[in-house]
Amino acid sequence: MFFEHSDETKHWVGKVQQFLDDEIYPNDALYHRQEAEGSRWKAVPIVDELKAKARAAGLWNFFMPPHSGQTHVDDSFQFEGVQLSNLTFAAIAEQLGKIGWASEVFNCAAPDTGNMEVLMRYGTLAQKERWLRPLMNGEIRSAFLMTEPAVASSDASNIQTSIVRDGDDYVINGRKWWSSGVGHPRCDVYILMGKTDPSARTYGQQSMLLVPANTPGITIERMLPVFGYDHASHGGHGQVLLENVRVPVQDALLLGEGRGFEIAQGRLGPGRIHHCMRIIGCAEMALEKMCRRLLSRRAFGKQLSEHSIWEQRIAEARIDIEMCRLLCLKAAWMMDTAGNKSARGEIAMIKVAAPRIACKIIDDAIQAHGGAGVTTDFGLAELYANNRIHRLTDGPDEVHARTVARMELGRYPAPASA
Amino acid sequence: MFFEHSDETKHWVGKVQQFLDDEIYPNDALYHRQEAEGSRWKAVPIVDELKAKARAAGLWNFFMPPHSGQTHVDDSFQFEGVQLSNLTFAAIAEQLGKIGWASEVFNCAAPDTGNMEVLMRYGTLAQKERWLRPLMNGEIRSAFLMTEPAVASSDASNIQTSIVRDGDDYVINGRKWWSSGVGHPRCDVYILMGKTDPSARTYGQQSMLLVPANTPGITIERMLPVFGYDHASHGGHGQVLLENVRVPVQDALLLGEGRGFEIAQGRLGPGRIHHCMRIIGCAEMALEKMCRRLLSRRAFGKQLSEHSIWEQRIAEARIDIEMCRLLCLKAAWMMDTAGNKSARGEIAMIKVAAPRIACKIIDDAIQAHGGAGVTTDFGLAELYANNRIHRLTDGPDEVHARTVARMELGRYPAPASA
Amino acid sequence: MFFEHSDETKHWVGKVQQFLDDEIYPNDALYHRQEAEGSRWKAVPIVDELKAKARAAGLWNFFMPPHSGQTHVDDSFQFEGVQLSNLTFAAIAEQLGKIGWASEVFNCAAPDTGNMEVLMRYGTLAQKERWLRPLMNGEIRSAFLMTEPAVASSDASNIQTSIVRDGDDYVINGRKWWSSGVGHPRCDVYILMGKTDPSARTYGQQSMLLVPANTPGITIERMLPVFGYDHASHGGHGQVLLENVRVPVQDALLLGEGRGFEIAQGRLGPGRIHHCMRIIGCAEMALEKMCRRLLSRRAFGKQLSEHSIWEQRIAEARIDIEMCRLLCLKAAWMMDTAGNKSARGEIAMIKVAAPRIACKIIDDAIQAHGGAGVTTDFGLAELYANNRIHRLTDGPDEVHARTVARMELGRYPAPASA
Amino acid sequence: MFFEHSDETKHWVGKVQQFLDDEIYPNDALYHRQEAEGSRWKAVPIVDELKAKARAAGLWNFFMPPHSGQTHVDDSFQFEGVQLSNLTFAAIAEQLGKIGWASEVFNCAAPDTGNMEVLMRYGTLAQKERWLRPLMNGEIRSAFLMTEPAVASSDASNIQTSIVRDGDDYVINGRKWWSSGVGHPRCDVYILMGKTDPSARTYGQQSMLLVPANTPGITIERMLPVFGYDHASHGGHGQVLLENVRVPVQDALLLGEGRGFEIAQGRLGPGRIHHCMRIIGCAEMALEKMCRRLLSRRAFGKQLSEHSIWEQRIAEARIDIEMCRLLCLKAAWMMDTAGNKSARGEIAMIKVAAPRIACKIIDDAIQAHGGAGVTTDFGLAELYANNRIHRLTDGPDEVHARTVARMELGRYPAPASA
Repeated sequence: MFFEHSDETKHWVGKVQQFLDDEIYPNDALYHRQEAEGSRWKAVPIVDELKAKARAAGLWNFFMPPHSGQTHVDDSFQFEGVQLSNLTFAAIAEQLGKIGWASEVFNCAAPDTGNMEVLMRYGTLAQKERWLRPLMNGEIRSAFLMTEPAVASSDASNIQTSIVRDGDDYVINGRKWWSSGVGHPRCDVYILMGKTDPSARTYGQQSMLLVPANTPGITIERMLPVFGYDHASHGGHGQVLLENVRVPVQDALLLGEGRGFEIAQGRLGPGRIHHCMRIIGCAEMALEKMCRRLLSRRAFGKQLSEHSIWEQRIAEARIDIEMCRLLCLKAAWMMDTAGNKSARGEIAMIKVAAPRIACKIIDDAIQAHGGAGVTTDFGLAELYANNRIHRLTDGPDEVHARTVARMELGRYPAPASA
Repeated sequence: MFFEHSDETKHWVGKVQQFLDDEIYPNDALYHRQEAEGSRWKAVPIVDELKAKARAAGLWNFFMPPHSGQTHVDDSFQFEGVQLSNLTFAAIAEQLGKIGWASEVFNCAAPDTGNMEVLMRYGTLAQKERWLRPLMNGEIRSAFLMTEPAVASSDASNIQTSIVRDGDDYVINGRKWWSSGVGHPRCDVYILMGKTDPSARTYGQQSMLLVPANTPGITIERMLPVFGYDHASHGGHGQVLLENVRVPVQDALLLGEGRGFEIAQGRLGPGRIHHCMRIIGCAEMALEKMCRRLLSRRAFGKQLSEHSIWEQRIAEARIDIEMCRLLCLKAAWMMDTAGNKSARGEIAMIKVAAPRIACKIIDDAIQAHGGAGVTTDFGLAELYANNRIHRLTDGPDEVHARTVARMELGRYPAPASA
Repeated sequence: MFFEHSDETKHWVGKVQQFLDDEIYPNDALYHRQEAEGSRWKAVPIVDELKAKARAAGLWNFFMPPHSGQTHVDDSFQFEGVQLSNLTFAAIAEQLGKIGWASEVFNCAAPDTGNMEVLMRYGTLAQKERWLRPLMNGEIRSAFLMTEPAVASSDASNIQTSIVRDGDDYVINGRKWWSSGVGHPRCDVYILMGKTDPSARTYGQQSMLLVPANTPGITIERMLPVFGYDHASHGGHGQVLLENVRVPVQDALLLGEGRGFEIAQGRLGPGRIHHCMRIIGCAEMALEKMCRRLLSRRAFGKQLSEHSIWEQRIAEARIDIEMCRLLCLKAAWMMDTAGNKSARGEIAMIKVAAPRIACKIIDDAIQAHGGAGVTTDFGLAELYANNRIHRLTDGPDEVHARTVARMELGRYPAPASA
Repeated sequence: MFFEHSDETKHWVGKVQQFLDDEIYPNDALYHRQEAEGSRWKAVPIVDELKAKARAAGLWNFFMPPHSGQTHVDDSFQFEGVQLSNLTFAAIAEQLGKIGWASEVFNCAAPDTGNMEVLMRYGTLAQKERWLRPLMNGEIRSAFLMTEPAVASSDASNIQTSIVRDGDDYVINGRKWWSSGVGHPRCDVYILMGKTDPSARTYGQQSMLLVPANTPGITIERMLPVFGYDHASHGGHGQVLLENVRVPVQDALLLGEGRGFEIAQGRLGPGRIHHCMRIIGCAEMALEKMCRRLLSRRAFGKQLSEHSIWEQRIAEARIDIEMCRLLCLKAAWMMDTAGNKSARGEIAMIKVAAPRIACKIIDDAIQAHGGAGVTTDFGLAELYANNRIHRLTDGPDEVHARTVARMELGRYPAPASA
């Protein structure tokens, strides 16, 4: 065991940190001004400007790990960007998490990262050239359409959107929501999960398709706010109606009919780890704000920071962050060394732990700020909203905890009577 | 001990419930439509319409308790409306809490209720005729300016707004925030707390003034969102700059110079109980939504309601609500029978307990709804925001817990060495 | 609603309090000395002495409520002692809970109280004269044999002890444990639950029998410590083997074959409330010790009581106790006014809430005492053990929470698909 | 970063695991039988027997780390046993924690380990030959006398035992408690902390002395049970009166007058890590028992393990253990690579986290076992007691949390006004 980052990780974290310090933090006020001005659902100019700068500096597409565990990679597709291990990218992602709009600057924003990895692993060369190329160039964006409003999507076998073969086409009908990114003006392609064969065994009913955003029959019915925030500049979260949406089988189908679950499982691993590391960055940011605030105010004759209730909360925050980060890094390391599948337990664990811990710390930070905590001044209320949703995205806590529990119970002999 | 409501309470709760069922719930969709249309910061027509109806039906001004404990009441001021005990109004307030815009219909909305009680107790007859009369008629609204952005206002002795005597006038300078209601188009008067004598003993430095909203020198600098919600139709929460605001002493001064703390203490008791009972109504609403949702969805082969983790959460919610309601009703009963001062401990207790319990239950309800929980469809995210803020309004949890602890410790002999 | 105890309750609480102050607290050290001396599993002389005194003073058998809800009472059986409402006895029980050995002095100790109520309600006059008479005179003690080591007894339908009819006798075979009181030298009778008809519907398989302690075939295999404490003077908790234990049907059978569940349900209600009120007394005692300790020690320049982490814990303890007591009193009041069955929800709620709250407070009190908390000096470790077990007695928390949840869910329409 | 144990660690863990499987687990029943037989406070024969075996196999004295950070080591003292890094010993200690009496077999039991390390670092060669030699040979045992019953010892500056110089001797007067190991029949030496100069600066008042157990004036007043368990075979926890205890300065004084704090700080680091890793072993054991139990019982129509409330608890247990272990191993690694002082924050963190997490898991395991959980059958109640005390040993949670918080706050500029 060795608890220090490698020289390579330090190198890349250092370069990203430098870029954050030089280009991103100084432009944060400008970003928020540009975002507030004009109409919603537009690209923010400073983001485009800094994307070009980051790309030119070679700080681009960090998220795509080298081959480990990727059995479907077609090596003939070459792209721009460094390929870092999950462990190295995890360390970077924590820094990106501290400032919400940073990930996109390095072309490392969700849901594109997960979608790009799906395309890389499971796409044909033609699919890659058409969609992965512009995505990795940062020219277009994408969305992922899985969750549905009508069913408990935490049990993915509930998903109902129908995909019916008609000649050389698929015809799609259904309603999706929490389709992140569909509101972005450059969102050009969706990856959609639906049922091709409702009569197959449970985990063979679903397929995944590539659907161009401008295909007829697609209606974005509304954008969904999260605790009052619409995340417009990130492309928001949409509710999407699909009525007789027709796509050619050859262009659309990923991997094969009935293999939707297989892709979903493969997609969600790295994405979860990225989210969790960004969440840890959020928690660090909240703890820093909490400390600074408590040091800046007095009540009942002493600094707030000297009231021992706050000492206890600060200590718990620090302890939880340290423990959570180690678990997340271990999960990333296992993905690198043993493959995403072997890391399944650790991924589920960190998916449960990180958002819970972050919500607790952000909530304490809100309390430390008094009224300033629940409004916009310190960004804490929005930070809370953005983290609270991660107890639900990619499946609620309870489903991941169930996975962990079943693996644990599986270590012991099953009961004779069961 | 007797745990059933009196006939009088049942009578009034029944009448209010009927009005809610007949007039308010059926118009909820209309209310939200009207609120969303046109510009923010306007009165909502359906509210005005139903106010007239409620007033005509004698369902008006319930919040003003009869004399018990009110040493300063000037009996010569007569007004419209029934005067119910705190205990009876508590039972009504719980029902009002279930639907956010109901309180105003019965002229029982914060911050007017607290302000009206202050005027009733401490105002001169002239002050009452000028401000209390139109407030109790539901013609104008009011705001309460206490909290300041620059200091930890949880320790009220930190408050810095200066009030300087100049001839027959006071001249006010300072900045307030979380001034609820200032954005309402009919908000005509503020009750403001500030320092008249910084050299007096700690609790004698502050005074309370009536300040007409249109006095020169007042600037509403911005309205403060709560987790992305601006509460526009309720008048929102403003940040208010006061620069050389000049008011005549005789019109403005409440009770006497240096008696601001005394008023603040008296004001906050009933208001807290009203809030807490409304909060319990919120918790009930969240629990109902949680149950209905869990009964309507299936995952992993059974209703969500049959998963025992949800059984445990439902049970905890029910238990917490029952316990919390009893404590709140007891506090109201003590205010009625022994006076607000004797109920100080119970008021502090319920102020700590109710918002914590409600936040927990609403958060569980959010989790039960999945993505639908964090967006607008079930109102749960906004409900969370509206309750989370109550861990901070009128002083953060920690300050009220401190009060409870000090009363508890006061029952035992002080240490010799301290 | 009315939150003050009646004059009758105050009268009896006052008399009991006086007796506690005059006779019990002053003899606490003597009690512990006598208990520690000589062999285990003996009656403690001071208890016998004070029992006689309490009985002479008319402070005796408070626990047996008047008729409300008792459909099977045979009025021809007269006994000594006042019959107080559940609400009045609840107020007394809280005081008794503060000092572990007090209940027996007033002939109000578990498991006798529950057993006596079973006999009163369901016994024939002959059964009453044989067993209830000496129990109510405090001459003998009793045990209740329900839980079994081999099955999850939280689901009472799992219980396996067989009762087979053989002529005019029943023959009992099985193993019970957590049979409280069997170690007491005067424990003369057991109430036992077992299966008379394994082929009947689930809730009609069980019957309840009276079994004299000296019946051949009964072996007390061992006494079970609770966290290292054996509760010897209370009769302890035994594991009991029953091998071909033969009792005459007419003497033994309570109420009727297959009606064991019905009796069990009726028995457990009042017993749970008594336990919960004693538990609240324990929590009060722990809070008092915590406060006194924190006031008596200094660290890092101030009293421990001035460290705000302890303010928060004290406040939470006080709030939880107040809320919990109100819920418990309400449950008692409902049993008095609407019957034990109508109070089923409230009884389940308080059964979940009280031990959890008490364990939390006692644990905090332990922490406040440092090393003195986990050893014998302040009795807190034993108090913890004695309360922790109440999260398991009469069914674990989870089962009672399940009851509460199912009642809650039952308020809404069942899902169409379920 | 690298999350796999080194080959060396795997080698030693494997050898220890083999010994545990071959010699210790098979003798567990014998150990408990021997412990229960005869008088308390005696050595247990099987322990002595296996000590000889372990020593012969070279599985001995693992706990003493190589030189890193040990500035005072006198290299001329040679001893038997392998010197493993803290990281390697941590991995072993977790296995030892799973079975309470294993540590002593390998001569790695507290409080000897900490005492031996103190002697190694700060003792003169003569002191080492007299005390460290037989300790490292496993021939004698030792105790550590720091905590006092009369003061809040969490603030070590409160300690009052007086050490007065009288010619070439020190004369000691005071009362200590929680002196672990003093009841062991072979406990020959105490390390004692007391005040040599009450007028010096706070952290220069204390000194540490070696005191032979048979020095006149020493009285073991009583042994202190922990939740009813006396830990007799481990030497228990004693209350020790020291009346005019006279020891020669040259033999007794460690390091120098006024340097007691310095030694205490150095001593407690590794000891805490050892405890924490053993605690993690306890938590693993509790989780295993919980799973096995839940798999073996049915209620309400399914295995207990299939009730989702238990899934959640199992998952939380697994997550907490994984996170906690990583933090503990990181702390050990930092002690190895950067020294105990640099690892101060991590040591404080794990000291807070490990016992809390273990207590929670053991408590859940108790609940899963029903009545079997609170009695002796599965050892869980004793396990709880043994872990609960670790929230107090070497200072309560709150003091370590305070250390963490102050380090955290120290990262930001101090307030101008403070």
